Amino acid sequence: MKIATFLHNDGTPRLGAVDTSRSTITDLALAAQIRAPEAMGYMRDALALIDGGEEALQMARALEDAAPEAAITPLDAVRLLAPLPVPRSIRDCLVFEQHLINYNAQRAKETGQEPATISQDWYKRPFYYKGNRFSVVGPGADIVWPDYSNSIDFELEIACIIGRKGSDIRPEDALAHIFGFTIFNDFSARDTQAVEKRMGMGSSKAKDFDTGNAIGPWIVTTDEIGDPHRLRMEARINGERWGGGNTSEMYHSFRDMISFISRSETLHPGELIGSGTVGTGCGIELGRSLSPGDTVELEIEKIGILRNRITRRHSGSGSAAPGTPEPHRNR
Amino acid sequence: MKIATFLHNDGTPRLGAVDTSRSTITDLALAAQIRAPEAMGYMRDALALIDGGEEALQMARALEDAAPEAAITPLDAVRLLAPLPVPRSIRDCLVFEQHLINYNAQRAKETGQEPATISQDWYKRPFYYKGNRFSVVGPGADIVWPDYSNSIDFELEIACIIGRKGSDIRPEDALAHIFGFTIFNDFSARDTQAVEKRMGMGSSKAKDFDTGNAIGPWIVTTDEIGDPHRLRMEARINGERWGGGNTSEMYHSFRDMISFISRSETLHPGELIGSGTVGTGCGIELGRSLSPGDTVELEIEKIGILRNRITRRHSGSGSAAPGTPEPHRNR
Repeated sequence: MKIATFLHNDGTPRLGAVDTSRSTITDLALAAQIRAPEAMGYMRDALALIDGGEEALQMARALEDAAPEAAITPLDAVRLLAPLPVPRSIRDCLVFEQHLINYNAQRAKETGQEPATISQDWYKRPFYYKGNRFSVVGPGADIVWPDYSNSIDFELEIACIIGRKGSDIRPEDALAHIFGFTIFNDFSARDTQAVEKRMGMGSSKAKDFDTGNAIGPWIVTTDEIGDPHRLRMEARINGERWGGGNTSEMYHSFRDMISFISRSETLHPGELIGSGTVGTGCGIELGRSLSPGDTVELEIEKIGILRNRITRRHSGSGSAAPGTPEPHRNR
Repeated sequence: MKIATFLHNDGTPRLGAVDTSRSTITDLALAAQIRAPEAMGYMRDALALIDGGEEALQMARALEDAAPEAAITPLDAVRLLAPLPVPRSIRDCLVFEQHLINYNAQRAKETGQEPATISQDWYKRPFYYKGNRFSVVGPGADIVWPDYSNSIDFELEIACIIGRKGSDIRPEDALAHIFGFTIFNDFSARDTQAVEKRMGMGSSKAKDFDTGNAIGPWIVTTDEIGDPHRLRMEARINGERWGGGNTSEMYHSFRDMISFISRSETLHPGELIGSGTVGTGCGIELGRSLSPGDTVELEIEKIGILRNRITRRHSGSGSAAPGTPEPHRNR
């Protein structure tokens, strides 16, 4: 099942089920109102559906299968929003070895030095940083270039949405804790990131700016994905293929990530976990960069296409040096 | 005004107003039910009160001032929870220069090398990492030592809670965006942190484990705090003073932090921003470490005392090396 959020005529976000073969979307709240009022609570929004667990998902499936005509709309007649407008959290791992190899090689080419080797630590655990859950936008949304950066990049990632609460989850049980998968474009200010990397506290202003986290176009439930570790991935800029790969190249699997993160730490439904960038899945690996006006299309097999356009940076104070969100001011 | 959350007889969390001079707490929802039913929505919980803005806060003040006897309880008769049980986010800065100086000096003593110097980057911006908002506990809560660590430390910090939405907030407007202040003990697994620091993606398992973020004992509203940059801070372990300082020692002020974070990024009511550790406000600076059973008391002038006890690590799988939440497993 493909779970989407779309903008209703009345201006409110609505939960939808997408049928890509018919190119339609079913308004699940309206379908419930007509066919199964007892399901309405679960169809309020994506978090309510996810929190409702297997019972809610079965009701959603039944509503999609027997949807009244009034609840079905052509997909191209609605504006999709982020399928999960505000995830309960965003964690983003770094599990593709080829991404690091390419990045180190590109850095070496630019500096004339030997490529750095990947640390042994990296092979032992799926490291991650935490993102800003309020910066999420959906398919078709403009990405607003933050005024403190001269260098915005995309990142082609797959993300899972947690569906079942748990801690100390064993790898072999981990996939059963996933509600579904979506595409994640973790837009990044590379000049800001370079400064933040030196400090060692992880990315913050480099990745957390408004509109910086695009997800979508919908969440595909785990049963429909099957094996999440064999899906083709591709990134296109203005229609040109820049890179891509396959989720099979993940060194640490979703099982590893969920098991690692949940050690002595509770995972909740509605939390999002990104894979990190697939090899060749961002500009910095390739020595290429985005410009205002560029359209970024990320495609993952069995999920779909997430398309976003970069808009020119808005005119801010203009006083900050590139990569520097705010100079220190004396009190 | 001092906003608390406490456990009601019926087992549910309730919003309360604390009067420290009388050592009482007013059940704001019950007071509203009796005196001002129109205020009940705002008194549902701390987020509802914060979201309600100045109107809600004025209603809460009026309810405390004219509280019916039935709504007033001796403070020591209730169990306090975290004043904001699940903040909308946690960001934690690093703004005390003395903390870094002490840390570098202690490291030098242990390694026999020259002390590291603080990077110039640090003086230019209030760097921060993001914490796990679901790991929050309140005063009196046990802190559960995660089974993957051999080294748990406390951190004496002051935190603000955002009260008003905004982005690109100017330093001179920033304090008006703060709802109030609380004490923040950012418990940290130092062995795990050392590994994560090498990777440069920021702290995650070192700080995000369940019960790892203690806040409280209540939130003191901005009007009652006055100047947040002149408050004494002290940390005591089992009653013995280990360290402390004053919020005046912050190199980057709350004005700077809010202005920096909000550049091209929207801040929302209910988000928490920590200051980072005051100089001598943690064990690692002092070459001292905590043990299971220790009681950590953090005190900040005009706020109060946040007291937590470290409980022995629960018996996990026991297979992980110290500081290693999960070894890599082949799929």
